[in-house]
Amino acid sequence: MPNLWEKSTTDAATATTAPDDWVMRFTVGDDYLWDRVLLPYDVTATRGHIWGLKKIGVLSEKEYADVEDALDDVMAAFESGTITVTPSDEDSHTVIENELTERLGSVGEKIHAGRSRNDQVLAALRLYLQDAIQHIGRQVGGLVDALCGLAERHPDTLMPGYTHLQRAMPSTVALWALGYAETLVSDLDGLRHVREQVNVSPLGSAAGYGVPHLDLPREEVAERLGFRAVQTHVTSVQLSRGKHEMAVVHALVQMIGTVNRLASDLILYATSEFGFVDLPDAHCTGSSIMPQKKNPDVLELSRGAYAGLVGELQSLAVQPANLPGGYHRDLQRTKGALMRSLQQSRDVLDAVTAVVEGVTFQRERTEAACTPDLMATHRALEQVAEGVSFRTAYREAAVDLNGAASLDPADVLATYATPGSLGRERPQVVRVMLDQQEWLERVESGKG
Amino acid sequence: MPNLWEKSTTDAATATTAPDDWVMRFTVGDDYLWDRVLLPYDVTATRGHIWGLKKIGVLSEKEYADVEDALDDVMAAFESGTITVTPSDEDSHTVIENELTERLGSVGEKIHAGRSRNDQVLAALRLYLQDAIQHIGRQVGGLVDALCGLAERHPDTLMPGYTHLQRAMPSTVALWALGYAETLVSDLDGLRHVREQVNVSPLGSAAGYGVPHLDLPREEVAERLGFRAVQTHVTSVQLSRGKHEMAVVHALVQMIGTVNRLASDLILYATSEFGFVDLPDAHCTGSSIMPQKKNPDVLELSRGAYAGLVGELQSLAVQPANLPGGYHRDLQRTKGALMRSLQQSRDVLDAVTAVVEGVTFQRERTEAACTPDLMATHRALEQVAEGVSFRTAYREAAVDLNGAASLDPADVLATYATPGSLGRERPQVVRVMLDQQEWLERVESGKG
Amino acid sequence: MPNLWEKSTTDAATATTAPDDWVMRFTVGDDYLWDRVLLPYDVTATRGHIWGLKKIGVLSEKEYADVEDALDDVMAAFESGTITVTPSDEDSHTVIENELTERLGSVGEKIHAGRSRNDQVLAALRLYLQDAIQHIGRQVGGLVDALCGLAERHPDTLMPGYTHLQRAMPSTVALWALGYAETLVSDLDGLRHVREQVNVSPLGSAAGYGVPHLDLPREEVAERLGFRAVQTHVTSVQLSRGKHEMAVVHALVQMIGTVNRLASDLILYATSEFGFVDLPDAHCTGSSIMPQKKNPDVLELSRGAYAGLVGELQSLAVQPANLPGGYHRDLQRTKGALMRSLQQSRDVLDAVTAVVEGVTFQRERTEAACTPDLMATHRALEQVAEGVSFRTAYREAAVDLNGAASLDPADVLATYATPGSLGRERPQVVRVMLDQQEWLERVESGKG
Amino acid sequence: MPNLWEKSTTDAATATTAPDDWVMRFTVGDDYLWDRVLLPYDVTATRGHIWGLKKIGVLSEKEYADVEDALDDVMAAFESGTITVTPSDEDSHTVIENELTERLGSVGEKIHAGRSRNDQVLAALRLYLQDAIQHIGRQVGGLVDALCGLAERHPDTLMPGYTHLQRAMPSTVALWALGYAETLVSDLDGLRHVREQVNVSPLGSAAGYGVPHLDLPREEVAERLGFRAVQTHVTSVQLSRGKHEMAVVHALVQMIGTVNRLASDLILYATSEFGFVDLPDAHCTGSSIMPQKKNPDVLELSRGAYAGLVGELQSLAVQPANLPGGYHRDLQRTKGALMRSLQQSRDVLDAVTAVVEGVTFQRERTEAACTPDLMATHRALEQVAEGVSFRTAYREAAVDLNGAASLDPADVLATYATPGSLGRERPQVVRVMLDQQEWLERVESGKG
Repeated sequence: MPNLWEKSTTDAATATTAPDDWVMRFTVGDDYLWDRVLLPYDVTATRGHIWGLKKIGVLSEKEYADVEDALDDVMAAFESGTITVTPSDEDSHTVIENELTERLGSVGEKIHAGRSRNDQVLAALRLYLQDAIQHIGRQVGGLVDALCGLAERHPDTLMPGYTHLQRAMPSTVALWALGYAETLVSDLDGLRHVREQVNVSPLGSAAGYGVPHLDLPREEVAERLGFRAVQTHVTSVQLSRGKHEMAVVHALVQMIGTVNRLASDLILYATSEFGFVDLPDAHCTGSSIMPQKKNPDVLELSRGAYAGLVGELQSLAVQPANLPGGYHRDLQRTKGALMRSLQQSRDVLDAVTAVVEGVTFQRERTEAACTPDLMATHRALEQVAEGVSFRTAYREAAVDLNGAASLDPADVLATYATPGSLGRERPQVVRVMLDQQEWLERVESGKG
Repeated sequence: MPNLWEKSTTDAATATTAPDDWVMRFTVGDDYLWDRVLLPYDVTATRGHIWGLKKIGVLSEKEYADVEDALDDVMAAFESGTITVTPSDEDSHTVIENELTERLGSVGEKIHAGRSRNDQVLAALRLYLQDAIQHIGRQVGGLVDALCGLAERHPDTLMPGYTHLQRAMPSTVALWALGYAETLVSDLDGLRHVREQVNVSPLGSAAGYGVPHLDLPREEVAERLGFRAVQTHVTSVQLSRGKHEMAVVHALVQMIGTVNRLASDLILYATSEFGFVDLPDAHCTGSSIMPQKKNPDVLELSRGAYAGLVGELQSLAVQPANLPGGYHRDLQRTKGALMRSLQQSRDVLDAVTAVVEGVTFQRERTEAACTPDLMATHRALEQVAEGVSFRTAYREAAVDLNGAASLDPADVLATYATPGSLGRERPQVVRVMLDQQEWLERVESGKG
Repeated sequence: MPNLWEKSTTDAATATTAPDDWVMRFTVGDDYLWDRVLLPYDVTATRGHIWGLKKIGVLSEKEYADVEDALDDVMAAFESGTITVTPSDEDSHTVIENELTERLGSVGEKIHAGRSRNDQVLAALRLYLQDAIQHIGRQVGGLVDALCGLAERHPDTLMPGYTHLQRAMPSTVALWALGYAETLVSDLDGLRHVREQVNVSPLGSAAGYGVPHLDLPREEVAERLGFRAVQTHVTSVQLSRGKHEMAVVHALVQMIGTVNRLASDLILYATSEFGFVDLPDAHCTGSSIMPQKKNPDVLELSRGAYAGLVGELQSLAVQPANLPGGYHRDLQRTKGALMRSLQQSRDVLDAVTAVVEGVTFQRERTEAACTPDLMATHRALEQVAEGVSFRTAYREAAVDLNGAASLDPADVLATYATPGSLGRERPQVVRVMLDQQEWLERVESGKG
Repeated sequence: MPNLWEKSTTDAATATTAPDDWVMRFTVGDDYLWDRVLLPYDVTATRGHIWGLKKIGVLSEKEYADVEDALDDVMAAFESGTITVTPSDEDSHTVIENELTERLGSVGEKIHAGRSRNDQVLAALRLYLQDAIQHIGRQVGGLVDALCGLAERHPDTLMPGYTHLQRAMPSTVALWALGYAETLVSDLDGLRHVREQVNVSPLGSAAGYGVPHLDLPREEVAERLGFRAVQTHVTSVQLSRGKHEMAVVHALVQMIGTVNRLASDLILYATSEFGFVDLPDAHCTGSSIMPQKKNPDVLELSRGAYAGLVGELQSLAVQPANLPGGYHRDLQRTKGALMRSLQQSRDVLDAVTAVVEGVTFQRERTEAACTPDLMATHRALEQVAEGVSFRTAYREAAVDLNGAASLDPADVLATYATPGSLGRERPQVVRVMLDQQEWLERVESGKG
């Protein structure tokens, strides 16, 4: 199929030499694969754009209706697999325009008026991001839910709390789980903010310097497509390329970073030495040489995904560095970094949620690890409550670190009064925080 | 001065060997320098904490009042330079407690009841962040303002718009400036979100596992200190260490990333070949060997600061990677990364704002660079407006790239109708967006 | 096909539950794709290992010969496409063992004695690296060659030399090209060192703790496979995982970093404003909206590849961070990072070499840009040569920056005497440096 | 003191406006602090340069001798603290030239002939690097030595070997220590290569485009200063800026990466749950709230330093990204990144070596952790040695994972024959490898 920028086959005088085959392969790279995901969003964005063209009379009502029908047809063909994006197509934009032109002749050749692939790809990408981020958000919600469930099943299972990896003070399985759950809800809020931030319409900016001669209804088109606003100054659109992607990937790094530490805990707890948890066999694999091994591979690979995301974040930070303004082809590479990160995060969230749902805490082991020295701070603060100055109490407690102190869970929990402490865990608070992330719910029902 | 964790001088049997001198130097590192900045915030957080202790009766009204007075005294001594934080002090927490104990005897030894340095440093850091981020925010506001001013002085100065660094379509100096201004306002919004996100109280979490025997009024203390909420589950507090720092630095990377590209443009425009701008002599330096040189060093170092911030972001991403939950001493290092990033950003924002205020665009050069080929898209879209299909118009325009087209600014600007395009720049819209970042204003007046 | 670590189908009592399907998909990821590249090297390493097993009597001569034949058969089947690695195979190791077992029965079940997949994959990877690095090395040699050719075609084409992107002193196209060529040869030397560093045998380390009961001839096997040495202490093998990969990718970052700046120069030189070079149409692409555009996409994507490699380097730096010693499944991810980096580098080197071979420098433009102020240093140093102190001469030259100075290339070049300066470029020196990288040559002939 | 590039105080017509004070502060940054370290190397490089100037007659024999004497004087003043580098000095180059001019009048003004600060700073930096890298090298040698000593004290102390953090097979303390030692020697080799790579003379390249009118004896000067070669093409010098720094920091990242994992192991082994080691009290610190805590802070901060170095590596990778060739002021920032990394690495190596020297392995704990399941592979391979196929033996061993197997150290060690395995550790091999790093030794004695 011809490229959108090949100018002529009839007039040799103006013909540009077609680029070599390897150039096409090199410049397209694996971009066409991502465009297979983006094509439906590109079609949606195109519907918005042609509505604008109709509004200002570039397309007649009839032409508009025909293009709409043809787009339905293209989508059906895409969904059935008859149409796809191949390397020689260059991108989904070319596929769509060529398919329309094939179906509608010169009407198909009208639709690119007033846009460039520069704003077109961003429109598609941002529509895609709305869905993709929301999907991730729901997965995180699922993981939070699983952690709350775990907490609810273990309201009084004592387990040492660690600082510097040394036993510090008593904790509970519930407190462990809800620490992660609450952190994830905070991560979710970051994700929500980014979703809003990137939800701005690039349409009408074309190659970054606007559209002469056509009075495109930018606000109305943006509204029809569900964008919260238009990027007013057309030069700001290409400046946001790479930045939006970095903001999304940063939010994913935050989330998968939380998962990374959760997985690190579980891997440690699953050692023979700690023995706090038992992982489902189904989430472990064996060794090709050691018959006895049961390895926490799912958790390790989930933990390891963090490094990949951090690498993508860094590649996004480097991509536009030191470049003057305006579009550069380098920026195409940000698409892969973004979409790979989303894909990877999805896989990890599914995997870790399954593990959290399947893990069994070994109460006898976690409680056996709660040794009397964990109560030294209790002994000091008990005296404080009776009027002794903290430093005096601290020094006295240090004299007899293993002094008598009940490690009966009920006794230990009874020493705490503040919400969010031992025995005062509040899974319901976390669930309410989760519910307040209404963007998860609302859209979900909107889908139904 | 004694460390907070040295237990005893009287009872040799329980005395821990004091760590070697080099251990103290190594573990403190340059942390004490940062604590000199944090000390006032540590004092503020301490005021909140002792109010809570009074509320639950650990301090009497009288003791509370005495500590408040002593804290005033400590602050005065700090501001006059009599008190500071030295490496042997270990940190500001130790300085404060020791100073209070010196002034008040055993009452001073009471104040650490119910907290650990783990939640204490986070309380101080987060109070500091409120101010530091707001300061950066105001600086960005100043830069946006300078860019709007530049746009207002150049409503119709034509300049080529570039894609792939090739001349693409006409643009204006106003459009150039407002593209950056609008992007910076979007960056500001990210910063605002982070400021809110980190504005949560860690107090009451102590070392990460809560406080037994004392019913600390966590919510009330948080409210008194201006936090928007409490981190409910005490285990979530240490999990947010490194994450909050990364979120702030990411927001700075976004902002300084915008500055990086703005600086890249100006450095390019200041070349002999482009010649679009003249930089103030005061912002340039010379060469030790080439007498004729006038180098844009301020812009280059501003551009270069981006790399440093990206490095800090990366160090923050690595710091907690693969670590189990709970505090680890490694995390102390996140403080320097955060505070260096803020300091660096402040310097760069001042510098770049001064350059934007001082730069002169050379209208005769920017307009001379607007060659007829820039109007090829105009010629195509003019035909589209008359009913020709875009592809046909595109191919025809390609036949005569340098065809007649007026490059008179008035004529060029007249071809645009959409807001945000050439001649339709809206500095006022950006100023309104800036005003909507009310956190800049509100807090400023709150300070007055 | 069964996994190497599935233990039993007959004795239900000891049967491990097989992991869920999604676990298999998640844990294998895209690893099987890389193993398609590695399989031939895995076969080679297996040949070395079975020779060792024969040497110590675990395989009889007959069995050894049979396995060798069967491996020939497997390789033929692989090359013809009958055998490949699929996700359900898990990895190339499983494919090879299963294929052998299918062909040879219980003899096939003998070959894994004395190794684990941990040392097996490293053996295959390191053999692959020898070839892959050498291939990259030869490509860099080709690029150096192209740059030397360019220099030889432009011995006296003047062009401004820039510092701070400001015209500084005269330079030549030859000096420009040879600066990059010499830098690339230095990069090559780094690559050579890494190639040597990683060329050590992991075999005999098994899962990282050696092989009991079998006296494997580690040195002899290593020598047969062309390794320069054995990693003596078996625990060091898994510690080098991630490190070797990072060393290779760092060397690639250095090389593609040089290419990044070369591409940045050419993109700048191809602007209308500089106009120093003309790029072949075949290496440029057009715009979907602006009919006149000719964009340096090949150079931009080559430049942009640097960001991707830096991201991979960072992911490799993060992967093992803070992990205790010994193998972790996270480390599997280093394989993809390594192999993607090599693939990407290959593509870029081909592309940039083609561009360097095709680029045309526009002598009239480069020389017109050599304005008299470039000669200010000359005027100062001319006086120095006559006995004036440098600072005095410098200050005097500054008084009349545009004083008379011949810009005739012959005159300018005549002022330089030192090798490596203008007119004293030495492409032959660079070619000799390149020839000294004898590993490129030697191995090449070894292949013939 | 005047800047080297301030041109005139007498002729107002040509006077450049002096940059604002804040510009000086901003552009100098903390660079002057690093220059305090570099000044002696700058003096040495200056000695080389003036020897060259004398050789070609720019300085007379008398002038040369006077400058040499004055440089002795400057060094004495620097060492006694009378001279230093302040922010207003801008850099060490300015200090040296100004001091010489003050002492010698116009002769001092002659010495900058034929160089620029661009090649001057690189000369000083590279001479400094020779020493700094060697110092680091010797420290690593010390750490290797300490690890060998530990191995020699524990030839037969059994300890579990872990994969996936699960007990895998038996290992020994010696094998643990020597795995790290051998890896560090490999790291050392990387450092040696980098030291050689950067040991090339930049002198004679001036600002990157060579020196007209003066026939500087580049090779002879390089040789006098101990450089192994000259960078021939003057344009390659500035291209290596940032690259050399990245190569050094990468080598440090590799080394501190090894230390990171060693520290991770020891922190894990120091937990109550593992209990394999006892750390010296002197290397631990306490808690401000929990009286019983003994925290491995020195190890944690050593581990944590890795993140900082990775951040510096990243900042160096970003700094020159996408910049055209030639010097840019951004590159000044690479100096701090490099020197901070070296300083940090030095501190960490001292700290970790002290810990390794002080750590006590708890034999009763490490051996108690060697449970019978660790011997499953032994049982399988024992059968293999008797002729059973590996898969059959593997499946049989899996049936009875805890079958009888002697865990007596002598018995376990007796099952290994290959060097580098249990009981076959070879500290002497590692010591020989260390001795082969003769650059450590040779230079050390050269110092004496």
